Amino acid sequence: MLLKQGQTLVMIGDSITDCERKRPYGEGLFGGTGKGYAAAVDALVHTRYPELRARIVNMGTSGNTVRDLKARWETDVLELKPDWVSIMIGINDVWRQFDQPTIPSSHVYIDEYESTLDELVARTKPAVQGIVLMTPFYIEPNRDDAMRQAMDRYGAVVKRLAEKHEARFVDTQAAFDALTAHIYPATLAWDRVHPNMTGHMALARAFLDAIEFEWF
Amino acid sequence: MLLKQGQTLVMIGDSITDCERKRPYGEGLFGGTGKGYAAAVDALVHTRYPELRARIVNMGTSGNTVRDLKARWETDVLELKPDWVSIMIGINDVWRQFDQPTIPSSHVYIDEYESTLDELVARTKPAVQGIVLMTPFYIEPNRDDAMRQAMDRYGAVVKRLAEKHEARFVDTQAAFDALTAHIYPATLAWDRVHPNMTGHMALARAFLDAIEFEWF
Amino acid sequence: MLLKQGQTLVMIGDSITDCERKRPYGEGLFGGTGKGYAAAVDALVHTRYPELRARIVNMGTSGNTVRDLKARWETDVLELKPDWVSIMIGINDVWRQFDQPTIPSSHVYIDEYESTLDELVARTKPAVQGIVLMTPFYIEPNRDDAMRQAMDRYGAVVKRLAEKHEARFVDTQAAFDALTAHIYPATLAWDRVHPNMTGHMALARAFLDAIEFEWF
Amino acid sequence: MLLKQGQTLVMIGDSITDCERKRPYGEGLFGGTGKGYAAAVDALVHTRYPELRARIVNMGTSGNTVRDLKARWETDVLELKPDWVSIMIGINDVWRQFDQPTIPSSHVYIDEYESTLDELVARTKPAVQGIVLMTPFYIEPNRDDAMRQAMDRYGAVVKRLAEKHEARFVDTQAAFDALTAHIYPATLAWDRVHPNMTGHMALARAFLDAIEFEWF
Amino acid sequence: MLLKQGQTLVMIGDSITDCERKRPYGEGLFGGTGKGYAAAVDALVHTRYPELRARIVNMGTSGNTVRDLKARWETDVLELKPDWVSIMIGINDVWRQFDQPTIPSSHVYIDEYESTLDELVARTKPAVQGIVLMTPFYIEPNRDDAMRQAMDRYGAVVKRLAEKHEARFVDTQAAFDALTAHIYPATLAWDRVHPNMTGHMALARAFLDAIEFEWF
Amino acid sequence: MLLKQGQTLVMIGDSITDCERKRPYGEGLFGGTGKGYAAAVDALVHTRYPELRARIVNMGTSGNTVRDLKARWETDVLELKPDWVSIMIGINDVWRQFDQPTIPSSHVYIDEYESTLDELVARTKPAVQGIVLMTPFYIEPNRDDAMRQAMDRYGAVVKRLAEKHEARFVDTQAAFDALTAHIYPATLAWDRVHPNMTGHMALARAFLDAIEFEWF
Amino acid sequence: MLLKQGQTLVMIGDSITDCERKRPYGEGLFGGTGKGYAAAVDALVHTRYPELRARIVNMGTSGNTVRDLKARWETDVLELKPDWVSIMIGINDVWRQFDQPTIPSSHVYIDEYESTLDELVARTKPAVQGIVLMTPFYIEPNRDDAMRQAMDRYGAVVKRLAEKHEARFVDTQAAFDALTAHIYPATLAWDRVHPNMTGHMALARAFLDAIEFEWF
Amino acid sequence: MLLKQGQTLVMIGDSITDCERKRPYGEGLFGGTGKGYAAAVDALVHTRYPELRARIVNMGTSGNTVRDLKARWETDVLELKPDWVSIMIGINDVWRQFDQPTIPSSHVYIDEYESTLDELVARTKPAVQGIVLMTPFYIEPNRDDAMRQAMDRYGAVVKRLAEKHEARFVDTQAAFDALTAHIYPATLAWDRVHPNMTGHMALARAFLDAIEFEWF
Repeated sequence: MLLKQGQTLVMIGDSITDCERKRPYGEGLFGGTGKGYAAAVDALVHTRYPELRARIVNMGTSGNTVRDLKARWETDVLELKPDWVSIMIGINDVWRQFDQPTIPSSHVYIDEYESTLDELVARTKPAVQGIVLMTPFYIEPNRDDAMRQAMDRYGAVVKRLAEKHEARFVDTQAAFDALTAHIYPATLAWDRVHPNMTGHMALARAFLDAIEFEWF
Repeated sequence: MLLKQGQTLVMIGDSITDCERKRPYGEGLFGGTGKGYAAAVDALVHTRYPELRARIVNMGTSGNTVRDLKARWETDVLELKPDWVSIMIGINDVWRQFDQPTIPSSHVYIDEYESTLDELVARTKPAVQGIVLMTPFYIEPNRDDAMRQAMDRYGAVVKRLAEKHEARFVDTQAAFDALTAHIYPATLAWDRVHPNMTGHMALARAFLDAIEFEWF
Repeated sequence: MLLKQGQTLVMIGDSITDCERKRPYGEGLFGGTGKGYAAAVDALVHTRYPELRARIVNMGTSGNTVRDLKARWETDVLELKPDWVSIMIGINDVWRQFDQPTIPSSHVYIDEYESTLDELVARTKPAVQGIVLMTPFYIEPNRDDAMRQAMDRYGAVVKRLAEKHEARFVDTQAAFDALTAHIYPATLAWDRVHPNMTGHMALARAFLDAIEFEWF
Repeated sequence: MLLKQGQTLVMIGDSITDCERKRPYGEGLFGGTGKGYAAAVDALVHTRYPELRARIVNMGTSGNTVRDLKARWETDVLELKPDWVSIMIGINDVWRQFDQPTIPSSHVYIDEYESTLDELVARTKPAVQGIVLMTPFYIEPNRDDAMRQAMDRYGAVVKRLAEKHEARFVDTQAAFDALTAHIYPATLAWDRVHPNMTGHMALARAFLDAIEFEWF
Repeated sequence: MLLKQGQTLVMIGDSITDCERKRPYGEGLFGGTGKGYAAAVDALVHTRYPELRARIVNMGTSGNTVRDLKARWETDVLELKPDWVSIMIGINDVWRQFDQPTIPSSHVYIDEYESTLDELVARTKPAVQGIVLMTPFYIEPNRDDAMRQAMDRYGAVVKRLAEKHEARFVDTQAAFDALTAHIYPATLAWDRVHPNMTGHMALARAFLDAIEFEWF
Repeated sequence: MLLKQGQTLVMIGDSITDCERKRPYGEGLFGGTGKGYAAAVDALVHTRYPELRARIVNMGTSGNTVRDLKARWETDVLELKPDWVSIMIGINDVWRQFDQPTIPSSHVYIDEYESTLDELVARTKPAVQGIVLMTPFYIEPNRDDAMRQAMDRYGAVVKRLAEKHEARFVDTQAAFDALTAHIYPATLAWDRVHPNMTGHMALARAFLDAIEFEWF
Repeated sequence: MLLKQGQTLVMIGDSITDCERKRPYGEGLFGGTGKGYAAAVDALVHTRYPELRARIVNMGTSGNTVRDLKARWETDVLELKPDWVSIMIGINDVWRQFDQPTIPSSHVYIDEYESTLDELVARTKPAVQGIVLMTPFYIEPNRDDAMRQAMDRYGAVVKRLAEKHEARFVDTQAAFDALTAHIYPATLAWDRVHPNMTGHMALARAFLDAIEFEWF
Repeated sequence: MLLKQGQTLVMIGDSITDCERKRPYGEGLFGGTGKGYAAAVDALVHTRYPELRARIVNMGTSGNTVRDLKARWETDVLELKPDWVSIMIGINDVWRQFDQPTIPSSHVYIDEYESTLDELVARTKPAVQGIVLMTPFYIEPNRDDAMRQAMDRYGAVVKRLAEKHEARFVDTQAAFDALTAHIYPATLAWDRVHPNMTGHMALARAFLDAIEFEWF
């Protein structure tokens, strides 16, 4: 696995990452990494590699867009001096365009999304050992759905930036598409966004595969 | 309008109807008819026809299927001696097949749905002046979606029964399809089922048109 | 209808407008426009004209007098750059003179009321496409009642200002008088001020008629 | 004063009497007699006649009509073996006809009111030293108001029964009319029914005058 | 009565006065003057003299000593421009010496008590029509009790200052001694300090007698 | 000490014993014996004699009189098959005569107190190794106080019964008198009944002395 | 994997299993299987084998011993007609002997433990396809610790019964010993019993290995 | 006993000391010294020496390390001008190294611990009559346990500093070892740190012995 002895991994994102994590830092006793995929990653790493003494910090914040990440990047990522950083952002950037279309100030369009994420990765890369970029997703198997199409376009941005910056890439949309081939979306998430534990575990598995976790 | 001086209308259904109505009877002071389409119907009738002194009672109960309606039909509908009864049921009958597919005891399949609804209407018709049958709906414009297809089949049952029993028919799915032609489903309902006030007003309008409400 | 494609309507007022609207801006998901006439207007506009993508923002604040509106006019109205503004204010200006007569600091007498409202309308008119002025009201059919008489005098001020500034005028008192011809005030509002949904729907209908809403 | 050494007075009625009294018996420590006129009577009696060791029990229950009093008369009045009983009932009997006119099961019309109250007084008189009958009231100075007129008719019933049974009579409506000659109703009670402390003190004073309380 | 048409009376003190009054000013709707003797005074004045339109403001604050009154005298008394001021202070000044004897910073000894109260009265007198000075009290009939003796010494200070400044004087201790001749202290107040409604009514009566209230 | 290896002590009484003990049995983890003298006894016994593995069960119930103890004696004492039983009861039996003198049904007079306590002790003695009888108390140093005099009479009953049945006797009143020689009652208990931790420790010390606890 | 298409697995146990599962049946939407190892098993099975549509029901109940399982076995296991049953019980059976040693009624000694568990397995085996027996555990690496020794003895019973009945066997103690070789117990569980997510994931992994889950 | 007439003792520490003490100063009415050993010391001193009128102030704060004590030493100890100071600190300094090993910022290693504690004692000694130094403890009888070993090393620091500064020394670990010879740790504290009342009483006894308390 890429994560080595005593290293620190900071996972940042929106509500999918947050999941009731501890404040101000999402780590430590009593569910510090929350109840979502970050907690599953944390638990699986320590269960499989107890000798590593890895430090995993969940810095997700519900409702965040990439614009919000930028505003707190210095204090919430760089000052923690991580060895690894994972980023999953973009769901709210897209969703607000569809669930409150009349409030443009809440939308983050694709150009701003790409340039901001690009800037954050470029700024971080020199200081860390590696970056993991995770796409946003929408648990909607219908690829003709307007919001799914938008989410796919944002996901393509993430893929392009991962290649540009040689970051590890996690296609979370593909992970959910594999599930929805067999499971109706409403079983996984009533709003097609906030998944149940099965969805979070799929995210954790996709993330761990990307950092070369050995399952046994 | 069909509702006449001093008449009583009982509206029964699931959470779409319920909307925090008063218990045991959904009428009277302080939001007795709840916060959904039944309340909008109640308000519009009294605003437009204050001289009618109509009595509108919301008897919806969250989570109900047609099987639950049958169990409380005597006390919750017939004993109220209504002049008019409206029924909107079936969403949970279908939804449970899709959001908890592994729990069959929570599913109401289409044969049971049709025979039960048929029985309730037949039993009620002799005692009332008229019945309004409203289809269940799913705020999903993609007609190839598996749950939408199922909901359409249940809606077709309602239409068939309305014709058989000469009841007033309300196609709520059509009312939502008219909205989703312009508005993305997530704006109307995060879970594509429980609408915001716009969705409830669309239901109220469709219902009122069916009972020949004169808008001015 | 006067409200056109993509336009913004700001509705400001006191508790009759507020009705648990979202803060700081009364719009968007999960009942952002509250539970009163502003929400009914919002729902009816989107139900009837889903293609308009109108933006309706409820900026009512419970307990406000015209003096309070003036204090927050810049941030709560002008900065939102609305195309249309509706104002319903004056109930508390009058009511405090009757329910706490010994506390003069809480009273807004008619001269201050008129000059302040006049100033707000004059200041706003150049920046918007239109203004809707709604009278305050008292759900008391007895025109000899002292507080009703006072409210009527404040309502006459609103009518005068509407004419002066060529604003759309809504006579909410007349709307309630039409209801109380058939319905006793206590059915509509225990305190003769805060109406139930029927009362709010009457306000919404009067407002929508004033902006040339087409009911079908 | 009529109340003598060690005697017990039971005061029964609706929410005007109840006022958060203790359950099951409204007496004793920590505000047992509630926060309304019964508590004021209790306090004034003990302040003025501390040597009497009178026992005052508040048995009011919010929402009660005379029909409800009858149902609990045995346990809530007779079993307490009072020396004196005061009754103030009828507000809800009338009010429900005006605030929920479409729900007839909640109305108590004047014939049932009179016959039931008559029966309760007749049944109680032999067992006690005296009965005090208090009229219901409506804090509405306009005698042409429909609900005020109804309340006056119920009050006339109380007066007639007081004369028939030689009970002490308290005209609470007259007590409020004396106040509203100078104070607008909204200062005393937002809903014109549940008075503030001033209104309760007026009730207490009228009651105490009827039992020949000596103010000093 | 001394209080005249349209005059303002400010009543200040500790928890005996406070009794859950409204903040920041203890007046107006919904129990603004609290639940204690100030509320009883307020209610009796308005019941007996509804035409006066007197303004009564309760400015008591739980836990206060005379040192606390001094700190808020400007804002909480003088800025209200009262015509009459009543002061009942000293219970906590004494009590803390007895219930937390090891914490001297919480004690206000008699010299500071007298000089501070003297200063407040002297400062206020020129601006008002009259001042009412009420003694502190202890509902302990045993005059040899150490805390009762201390309270009596503080009460004597109040009497002396009333004479010096020609203020109206209320001997609250005497009012309670009259009650405890017949009623055991625990019936009036579990802690011998915070009375039930009977005790508050005794305070109200003593106060009203001092301002020449006519009971009928 | 009298309590031997593995023996069970049941301590029963009123609120002084109860102190938020666990239900249905006052023992075990997380403060099972409550926060009062029973908990202090429990802690001191285990601290001083950890090898004893004694079982201490607090069965106090707030508000109890001896009449209440009798009603639950079988289930709450005898069925626990204790080796030792301690009883402290009587405060409420007396107190209610003084704090709610007009409600005789709440009083337990001295004859009933003596005969009931006598019966309970007689019934229990054959089944246990020993009984500890603790007097009720009143933290009032003035022996002329009416309630103190009554409490002393009830305490004398306890002493008489202890002698009659050869039970261990604890004079709790004497323990408090020793404290109040130096500490004003209000420091120990605002209501002169429910002591702070110092008072509870005095009770625990008196109890432990009676069972020959060796302090070191 | 042993679990096949459409099969049902019931997981029963104590608080380690329970973890806030849904009532009465621990399955379905909104975290029905709780927050512990059962939820992790549920999520991993559905993530890895979405096509199986397996049904996993968590029937753990906090505080249970094997005695409690027996009492609810019919309704909580057999009536669900499971294909597979997993049992992890015994922690409370042992723990109560150590954390409340003086309350013998709360202890389940090893003979009762073995015979009861034996009976439950024997009774269930004919009706199911397979049984998984999981040992109880104590997150205490010191094998000389008295409670660890007891827990090991109970674990040996489980192993013996698994062999006797040819059930799948999960050595949870071994799973924790592997963790505590590197991680101090307090990191995993403050009370050495209720693990954090890392501990639950270790349980899930051990369970899944026992049913031949293929990690990829 | 060392504590003399009217002297003040300040007890400072972490959650073991804090135990819900009053803020900002842990003294006075209604459980001011909390529910732990400080409260037991307070109660025992006043019970045994009521004439001393000693002042005991609990200044413990949950979660504190010696680093936190230093930050608040001036305001929370020196400004209180105590005659005696007791310090029990170090549990969190050690514990965080074991329960959140990956978060080094939360650890206080032994050099910082010793130098900081040394500095605090040196700074305080000239201003007080005496200092009591209490070791930290871990209710773990296994002396080979890694955290117990660390705690013993910190305890040795306390002993060394007590000798260096001629402070009174309390070996709390020895007090717990005496208990755990007979009582399993889980009976005293589920997390082996926060004791039940028995554990707190053991701390109080050890403390009182160190200040030459005479038990009788």
